[in-house]
Amino acid sequence: MRVSVIGGGRVDEEDRERAEAVGRELAERGHEIVCGGLGGVMEAACRGAKEAEDPARTVGILPTDDSADANEFVDVPIATGMGNARNALVVGNGDAAIAIDGKYGTLSEIALALDRGSPVATLGSHDVEGAEPVESAAGAVTFVEDALQR
Amino acid sequence: MRVSVIGGGRVDEEDRERAEAVGRELAERGHEIVCGGLGGVMEAACRGAKEAEDPARTVGILPTDDSADANEFVDVPIATGMGNARNALVVGNGDAAIAIDGKYGTLSEIALALDRGSPVATLGSHDVEGAEPVESAAGAVTFVEDALQR
Amino acid sequence: MRVSVIGGGRVDEEDRERAEAVGRELAERGHEIVCGGLGGVMEAACRGAKEAEDPARTVGILPTDDSADANEFVDVPIATGMGNARNALVVGNGDAAIAIDGKYGTLSEIALALDRGSPVATLGSHDVEGAEPVESAAGAVTFVEDALQR
Amino acid sequence: MRVSVIGGGRVDEEDRERAEAVGRELAERGHEIVCGGLGGVMEAACRGAKEAEDPARTVGILPTDDSADANEFVDVPIATGMGNARNALVVGNGDAAIAIDGKYGTLSEIALALDRGSPVATLGSHDVEGAEPVESAAGAVTFVEDALQR
Repeated sequence: MRVSVIGGGRVDEEDRERAEAVGRELAERGHEIVCGGLGGVMEAACRGAKEAEDPARTVGILPTDDSADANEFVDVPIATGMGNARNALVVGNGDAAIAIDGKYGTLSEIALALDRGSPVATLGSHDVEGAEPVESAAGAVTFVEDALQR
Repeated sequence: MRVSVIGGGRVDEEDRERAEAVGRELAERGHEIVCGGLGGVMEAACRGAKEAEDPARTVGILPTDDSADANEFVDVPIATGMGNARNALVVGNGDAAIAIDGKYGTLSEIALALDRGSPVATLGSHDVEGAEPVESAAGAVTFVEDALQR
Repeated sequence: MRVSVIGGGRVDEEDRERAEAVGRELAERGHEIVCGGLGGVMEAACRGAKEAEDPARTVGILPTDDSADANEFVDVPIATGMGNARNALVVGNGDAAIAIDGKYGTLSEIALALDRGSPVATLGSHDVEGAEPVESAAGAVTFVEDALQR
Repeated sequence: MRVSVIGGGRVDEEDRERAEAVGRELAERGHEIVCGGLGGVMEAACRGAKEAEDPARTVGILPTDDSADANEFVDVPIATGMGNARNALVVGNGDAAIAIDGKYGTLSEIALALDRGSPVATLGSHDVEGAEPVESAAGAVTFVEDALQR
């Protein structure tokens, strides 16, 4: 499946490690990553996905109109030139979403994902009714896998 | 100024009255309403704005591509055909936002408004850090007026 | 009805006069103007609409995310922040389109208008099969009025 | 490089063969395909790219919000839910464009590609000033390769 990994463009060391672990875990379980294509959580998740033993494909849906703005671990950059309106596309192209840290942009994506009925796991991110707080990368991936199989 | 009034497409009687009161209050203080153009909170706010002694202009930015989907109190329907990606335009065209009730779509709009630095008042809506919970329509309008004058 | 007036952001004197005449003619016949909100043909059409004896409402759907980018004759600026993707909204909010001069952006709008089945008149603009070349502002407005009544 | 292949959703046998040949030629010369993801020219170009000896990656940027609408030869479907506003993204994600057959939607994409300064080859498609009419798939690919190296 495809999982949207969402989170802030700037992260501290802990969240960077979490995001890398999520990317790696998704890759190792055979899932593709969709993200906003920029730095911080997005970059760390893509890096994790590419450093896994069996690397996953990474899609980055950018707010700008220049695909060169994608971080170096994005395989398929999609330039939109739409600013934050592209947040709907980031979660609209995942079967589920995993949120790590992040501020208002991430909160909007959690909400947009829930609005379309996608399961959402949050790892050190916003506390939103309907989203599932998890404690680890493995827990996040297991939650969305289980939710989609139900 | 222009104020985005955001909230659910279906409302109970209490929230309908709140939304009408917000629309009326905005109109009476000389402000324009921007909303998502559909029913529920959006329709009630537009109705309030048009029933004020000095009616305000109401703009409805629709998710569909058919301007006929706008509620009858919208003066200027804007059909986007963009689904929820239009949420960014609803708050991107207000100087501030007032949220009433609402579910995930509304939460995404609160987040997108805060992300662009707009003041946001919430009236019986989501509790989001950075947004100001208020108790009344007058309180909501006063809050956003004051925030924009600072 | 609502008519999208489309054309270049820079115009010579002849096209400026044509665009003003189109805006004025639309206003005098009771129609609303939708345009891309910027300068050149867009500004001249809005100016014409506002200088008519019975001024028409003018809507400007901007490529930028700042409503202050609208020309001074726009009553309702809609900031999209979507760049040229907003061209679809410019013609998607008109019942018909009138093109004056213009380059590739205008050609894309003529095509998008025809694609959705809107009648299109061209006044010193691109020669596109399915669009109607006209000789005057009055001819342009008469063509789209007649086409919509058929 | 990435090349946007644009054209109608329904094609006759001749244009289907042309589109397949363009997809195959692009793949054999090491280029990636971006298209609108649906049937007709889009499907044929993707099929050609996947049937080449060294298959190319194919990206389909869909008007709908459902990635299942992509044709079976699309590797990376991107659901936008934006209707024709997505045409700007189809050409905005290519370094160049090749148009085959097509009607107004295709014409809008040719225009949007030229508007952003991309080289455009047309193969049995619209005759637009600034785009290069070519006679064969190989000629189309050679034209855009040369134009980008200048």
